[in-house]
Amino acid sequence: MLVSLKRIALAAAFLLLFSSSAQTQDSLFIRKIYDHALTKGQSYEQLRDLTQNIGARLSGSPQAAAAVEWARQEMEKMGLDRVYLQEVMVPHWVRGEKEYAAIVNSHISPTREVNVLALGGSVATPTNGLTAEVVEVQGLDELKKLGKKKVQGKIVFFNRPFDQTHIVTGKAYGGAVDQRSSGPSEAARLGAVGVVVRSMASNTDDFPHTGGLRYAEDAPKIPAVAISTKGSDLLSSLLKDDEKLQFHMRVNSQWLPDVLSYNVIGEIKGTEKPEEIILVGGHLDSWDIGEGAHDDGTGCVQSMEVLRLMKAMNYKPKRTIRAVLFMNEENGLRGGLKYAEVAKQRGEKHIAAIESDAGGFTPRGFGISAPTEAMFQKFLTWKNLLAPYGLHDLERGGGGADIGPLKDDRVALIGFRPDSQRYFDLHHTANDTFDKVNKRELELGGASMAALVYLIDTYGL
Amino acid sequence: MLVSLKRIALAAAFLLLFSSSAQTQDSLFIRKIYDHALTKGQSYEQLRDLTQNIGARLSGSPQAAAAVEWARQEMEKMGLDRVYLQEVMVPHWVRGEKEYAAIVNSHISPTREVNVLALGGSVATPTNGLTAEVVEVQGLDELKKLGKKKVQGKIVFFNRPFDQTHIVTGKAYGGAVDQRSSGPSEAARLGAVGVVVRSMASNTDDFPHTGGLRYAEDAPKIPAVAISTKGSDLLSSLLKDDEKLQFHMRVNSQWLPDVLSYNVIGEIKGTEKPEEIILVGGHLDSWDIGEGAHDDGTGCVQSMEVLRLMKAMNYKPKRTIRAVLFMNEENGLRGGLKYAEVAKQRGEKHIAAIESDAGGFTPRGFGISAPTEAMFQKFLTWKNLLAPYGLHDLERGGGGADIGPLKDDRVALIGFRPDSQRYFDLHHTANDTFDKVNKRELELGGASMAALVYLIDTYGL
Repeated sequence: MLVSLKRIALAAAFLLLFSSSAQTQDSLFIRKIYDHALTKGQSYEQLRDLTQNIGARLSGSPQAAAAVEWARQEMEKMGLDRVYLQEVMVPHWVRGEKEYAAIVNSHISPTREVNVLALGGSVATPTNGLTAEVVEVQGLDELKKLGKKKVQGKIVFFNRPFDQTHIVTGKAYGGAVDQRSSGPSEAARLGAVGVVVRSMASNTDDFPHTGGLRYAEDAPKIPAVAISTKGSDLLSSLLKDDEKLQFHMRVNSQWLPDVLSYNVIGEIKGTEKPEEIILVGGHLDSWDIGEGAHDDGTGCVQSMEVLRLMKAMNYKPKRTIRAVLFMNEENGLRGGLKYAEVAKQRGEKHIAAIESDAGGFTPRGFGISAPTEAMFQKFLTWKNLLAPYGLHDLERGGGGADIGPLKDDRVALIGFRPDSQRYFDLHHTANDTFDKVNKRELELGGASMAALVYLIDTYGL
Repeated sequence: MLVSLKRIALAAAFLLLFSSSAQTQDSLFIRKIYDHALTKGQSYEQLRDLTQNIGARLSGSPQAAAAVEWARQEMEKMGLDRVYLQEVMVPHWVRGEKEYAAIVNSHISPTREVNVLALGGSVATPTNGLTAEVVEVQGLDELKKLGKKKVQGKIVFFNRPFDQTHIVTGKAYGGAVDQRSSGPSEAARLGAVGVVVRSMASNTDDFPHTGGLRYAEDAPKIPAVAISTKGSDLLSSLLKDDEKLQFHMRVNSQWLPDVLSYNVIGEIKGTEKPEEIILVGGHLDSWDIGEGAHDDGTGCVQSMEVLRLMKAMNYKPKRTIRAVLFMNEENGLRGGLKYAEVAKQRGEKHIAAIESDAGGFTPRGFGISAPTEAMFQKFLTWKNLLAPYGLHDLERGGGGADIGPLKDDRVALIGFRPDSQRYFDLHHTANDTFDKVNKRELELGGASMAALVYLIDTYGL
């Protein structure tokens, strides 16, 4: 009895020692990742290059093609085991001449120009624009209640703002975005001739936010624009005094034939289990305004930085670590769909996929969609290793649009979660530019993703 | 025995129920604080007014006087139980005509102007400036090792940069700032004629960061300037090629007689224990460049917002809640010292003091200097109530310069801790302006301080 107790005690002590020394080793390695990223990081200069020398890069544009070649060359420089392009046909929408809109024919005020941007994918108005009375609604439900009689021949103005009480702004976005995505077709079903949507914004300013709409197959396609939050407030207040006022909008967009483009992929091959893939990624395309800095240049350079950090530290991963810069997240998701399709064809086994597509702000944690609770709990065992870097939020749920199609019964889909407060001030606007990205915040993000990749590689899932 | 077990079980159940219902009540009230701050907050518009209509407000300046009157009026509007000014004599230093500096007489490059700012409190150079050879050091230790022979007659260039590996940038600042505060006198002791200090900055740009120096009583006073980080790098690289190059600097500052100024104080009187004071504060003065937005306009408007939130929610505190906008934190701390002196004279009992002086960024937590471990542990019992708002960092240590003099054996000194990544990009520069403050980040900070005040008021310390 005594002996066996002693043995158990010894075994326990050994386990404790072993596990605590493993923790120490992990902690030291993670510290090195951050040290390297913060002192020798290259993601910021890469981002400067991508955003300022290439700039906005909507799918199908020459700039998107330039971004593909740029990313391929950047990865080639890194001495990875493999860099390749994955073909994907992408939609090609062009804005054409800048949109124009104004509030007109108001009995009580002069014509007022307002700042708008066509929603991505919108059809054009007639060349001279369209002018109609406006019906303001707070969302799809209110629209449906109005019915055809009150909507026919009018421009529908969706004006439900962000719910500012959400601490994480993504929830406010999620609560408002149906107006932009489904609003145009729902309005068209009731006979509307155009749509104006309040910008999906967490602040109040003069910058409209574009973003994708989804035309339903069975509804007429009507033109749709996003109006700045200040413009929304003005339109709404003028409507209160004059419900007969008219809105004039001119959209000059076109749909062109699909274009051949690419996902850009680089990887370090695993030394023990090369068949198990840990993916990090962001999307290379952006909207056609601003510079696509936080959305999603930062996710791209952070993903490449994960591989660069591993190489710089001479880390030989057990598993294959792959960076994927997806094409066409913004208006089609063709890159994400193609990647998953090919992975399936090839029987590739992804054990985890981490997407950075919420901006290059200070890291707060990760949202984790694990196929089993046990797997999720495994992430929680790393809490103490991540907390010193401010990564407190390890929460259930999350992932990313591009990695979503990889979902199966074994892969953990993970969304990198940076601080969310400033993202929807500039998301999809002309303001999403390089100067809005802070170097340290960006570098901390890449290091955080690398730290998680290291843990997944070391312990498996 | 059975009965008594039953009784214990009942008592335990009751306690559990009670404590969980208390937690629920707290959680609901805190949620209301945030809802109100995020939807009806006034701190952002107050900050706009303070920073854009008054602007930079160094102690003794007309703008500092304007800020005092502005703050008094703002608090008067709030319907507090008491608003008053507390007299304090403050130092009065003026920069005079803008400084000038250049790298001259280099054999291998033309004269190059560089961006500098006199350190706060620096004496002037002769009217035509001073020109001397430069000796570069990485800090006070290296300076002392050089000794008189190598320093005499020269300008000492302190060039130790921030250690970027710190996750919290305040630690990097703490590790570099002795060059600015003590460097000038230490250099003067060895016969230096002037000092150039690398800006205390977390980024690399053309903006110099000013900040206070402390002349030792027993050393000659020599002029000192901060040079931008880009300027530092240039100077250092030119010195490598030409150690005989000269630096020219012109500082036009003056010391004027002390000026009567004020701490601005407002309070809501406690209903049960009015003698117990919970203080929230920031400092009203700023450096004389930029707009004093993050340093420390945000701390001022957040402190006022705490009182406004309590009034708006019709909360009747048990204890007295007092907002103090301190004068002269930047170059003398006279306001903080006077406040503590008067509090002592009056026998006032402060149970907690919370200072916001680390910028108006997204809240991460609080640094807590509690006189006993038991008191610190009490803060930790509130962890679950604060975590939903991203307040994960409840750490030992912290406080603030202005509240420091209140230290005794019963008061908890607490520093509000926002995200630190961007603060030292703009701290003490012309860049510390209103447009660098994000409305939601600012409002979350005020709400976080109010939540903590509520818990301290409810449970005592």
